Amino acid sequence: MRKSNYFLKTRKETPSDATLISHKLMIRTSMIKQTTSGIYAWLPLGLKVLKKIENIIRDVQNLFGCQEILMPTIQQSDLWKKTGRYNDYGPEMLKFLDRNKKELLYGPTNEELITNIFKDYVNSYKDLPKNLYQIQWKFRDEIRPRFGIMRCREFLMKDNYSFDLTADAAKKSYDNMFKCYLKTFQSMGLRAIPVKADSGAIGGDMSHEFHIISESGDTKIIYDKKIDTLKDLTSESSYKILRNIHSVTEEKYDESDCSIKKNDIVIKKGIEVGHIFFFGTKYSSSLNTYVLDKNGKKINVEMGSYGIGVSRLVAAIIESSHDKDGIIWPKEVSPFDIGLINLNPKDKKLTKISDNLYLTLKKNNKDVLYDDTFESPGNKFADMDLIGIPNQIIIGKRNVENNNLEIKNRKKK
Amino acid sequence: MRKSNYFLKTRKETPSDATLISHKLMIRTSMIKQTTSGIYAWLPLGLKVLKKIENIIRDVQNLFGCQEILMPTIQQSDLWKKTGRYNDYGPEMLKFLDRNKKELLYGPTNEELITNIFKDYVNSYKDLPKNLYQIQWKFRDEIRPRFGIMRCREFLMKDNYSFDLTADAAKKSYDNMFKCYLKTFQSMGLRAIPVKADSGAIGGDMSHEFHIISESGDTKIIYDKKIDTLKDLTSESSYKILRNIHSVTEEKYDESDCSIKKNDIVIKKGIEVGHIFFFGTKYSSSLNTYVLDKNGKKINVEMGSYGIGVSRLVAAIIESSHDKDGIIWPKEVSPFDIGLINLNPKDKKLTKISDNLYLTLKKNNKDVLYDDTFESPGNKFADMDLIGIPNQIIIGKRNVENNNLEIKNRKKK
Repeated sequence: MRKSNYFLKTRKETPSDATLISHKLMIRTSMIKQTTSGIYAWLPLGLKVLKKIENIIRDVQNLFGCQEILMPTIQQSDLWKKTGRYNDYGPEMLKFLDRNKKELLYGPTNEELITNIFKDYVNSYKDLPKNLYQIQWKFRDEIRPRFGIMRCREFLMKDNYSFDLTADAAKKSYDNMFKCYLKTFQSMGLRAIPVKADSGAIGGDMSHEFHIISESGDTKIIYDKKIDTLKDLTSESSYKILRNIHSVTEEKYDESDCSIKKNDIVIKKGIEVGHIFFFGTKYSSSLNTYVLDKNGKKINVEMGSYGIGVSRLVAAIIESSHDKDGIIWPKEVSPFDIGLINLNPKDKKLTKISDNLYLTLKKNNKDVLYDDTFESPGNKFADMDLIGIPNQIIIGKRNVENNNLEIKNRKKK
Repeated sequence: MRKSNYFLKTRKETPSDATLISHKLMIRTSMIKQTTSGIYAWLPLGLKVLKKIENIIRDVQNLFGCQEILMPTIQQSDLWKKTGRYNDYGPEMLKFLDRNKKELLYGPTNEELITNIFKDYVNSYKDLPKNLYQIQWKFRDEIRPRFGIMRCREFLMKDNYSFDLTADAAKKSYDNMFKCYLKTFQSMGLRAIPVKADSGAIGGDMSHEFHIISESGDTKIIYDKKIDTLKDLTSESSYKILRNIHSVTEEKYDESDCSIKKNDIVIKKGIEVGHIFFFGTKYSSSLNTYVLDKNGKKINVEMGSYGIGVSRLVAAIIESSHDKDGIIWPKEVSPFDIGLINLNPKDKKLTKISDNLYLTLKKNNKDVLYDDTFESPGNKFADMDLIGIPNQIIIGKRNVENNNLEIKNRKKK
């Protein structure tokens, strides 16, 4: 993409309510624009990153045997009344009436709806296990939206749901998703620490959150320092350690129950990017959802649900990867593979070389942000660093004279 | 995908309110499930088709110089009040209050919001033209939702918006989108006829609809029979003819103004799948949106907007391509490339050959629906035809004996 033609305008100032570095940087790079309190539009640069994250999540979900569906954003109140959550969920659930005065809501989560969909299509133990996921916009009417897309009202989530015949099988599905999440975050160039957590409004008796370590995180997590020594969190041996080691949110921490030696305790702040729940038959029993087992007996299916904050991940990645000059994207989710800077577009020779390189890179399926603008070299360097593309190629007069290129790694500069 | 494991359940019966063949077939193949009046969940088979259509649209939009963004589904009332459409739009616009009693709405279209986004980032004629698109869910509170996803309440649309300095430049952008739409529909294996149309709630003085010919269409279109002789609608010569030939919706038809010879008039029913509008400064003036021209003078930008009914296209394609046995997908949008049937999974030799072929096809990046179930051959044939995968490979005992395969083209059977 030629920068001269791109819908992109970097800026020095940020809105006064932006305190978080990710919020500031996303505004300064025109990744997002707030359209009303806690609601954002995604501009081309931001949407590219969001789509990359979405596609990594999709690929890993498919790899772990999940099948993609898409539920509507708007639901009717009936199923939520049956499970009691229509009132329990609280004012974060956006409720309203349609033109026929029917009670509608904007789905904040989907345990009720997916259970009802499942019910219509599966009735035998032979069809189990099943695991269905979607990547869809959700709405939670935060009383005080803040921190940009980190705590906003309309946000993109991946949510999936497992269905099993027995609690043991459901726990296997839970473990499968535990591994899936480790793999998902690693595929984005991230290290996410799993911690035991509370189940909250979803309910259930087993739950883990996945946290990106960051000073700006709003959850305190407490874990055995051994986790920090694990190189690859997705290996089978790491998985075994992570599944059994002591690692909890502050809420779940109980000194008398903590198995970590005093000197081995690590306390850090984390940003929650994923949450998995096993809740058994909580929804299948209240929504009368069962399959027939081998003997023709009705069995309420055992369920779990699993969420990843897709849009929140964009901010979490920036929080954990930036410097004073701007964002440093992990290459897996960078909006462009390469930033190409022509230092002087008025110079015909320079421009011919830059244009040719741009076309050659494009032909080789490299996604390039090509700065062909008439800005000063200083502004061009600053912009490319702010945007945070990991690999940059700079072409100036001296390079042409010396028949070489300047290649810069954003991280190492 | 192994059919034994797929979230797919074909059925013979359809709900009593399903009159349209596409509605019936989408229910029978479990592509969609109604979750409440006029609101649908997309199940794996349906979502695959929807995503294919979405990706074709995205590729062609990019090819024609449009840049992708994503606006939120929920908007505040303020901009709509400024243009007067908050009241004008009528009860199809879903309005409601958040927990702080702020007036919100679920976007039925986005002229206001996009104009406001543009305003923040573009202020010079040098940055024009610009063309921004999104593929996003919309909500229109139909008084009587019907025909499945053809006339539903929550639906997926591609909408884009052009911004130009002069009316002449804006008309070029309009023509660019006219060509883009011809190319988009052809890329899906479809023939869409452009017709002059009314502008409706969007407003403006130039507008075309794009129609898929179908007996079940609810718009009568009147056009010169010469259009039916054009082989490739996307060629430069066809474009010139289509842009100038007489072709209108019934509403726009005026006998005294019709230039078609009586014998050359074709009257057919069409399903509207696209609509393009040029409306000049209607929104930029009411929302005070301008750029500075060469002389530093404020110029209200000239705009057009362009829509494609993404989810509706799934139904429109089925309406125009099916037979008594089921759907016949154009290969461009088929949920799978190949349907593979193992006629007898109990036969080990047959199963080994089928399994190997399935893996080989997958390795060659073919997306295969592999019927490995224990259903009867008759049911397997019927299911594969119902689902409508264009190419089928059938493996039975006789094939193994004769060392061959049976290949079936769904269309020619």
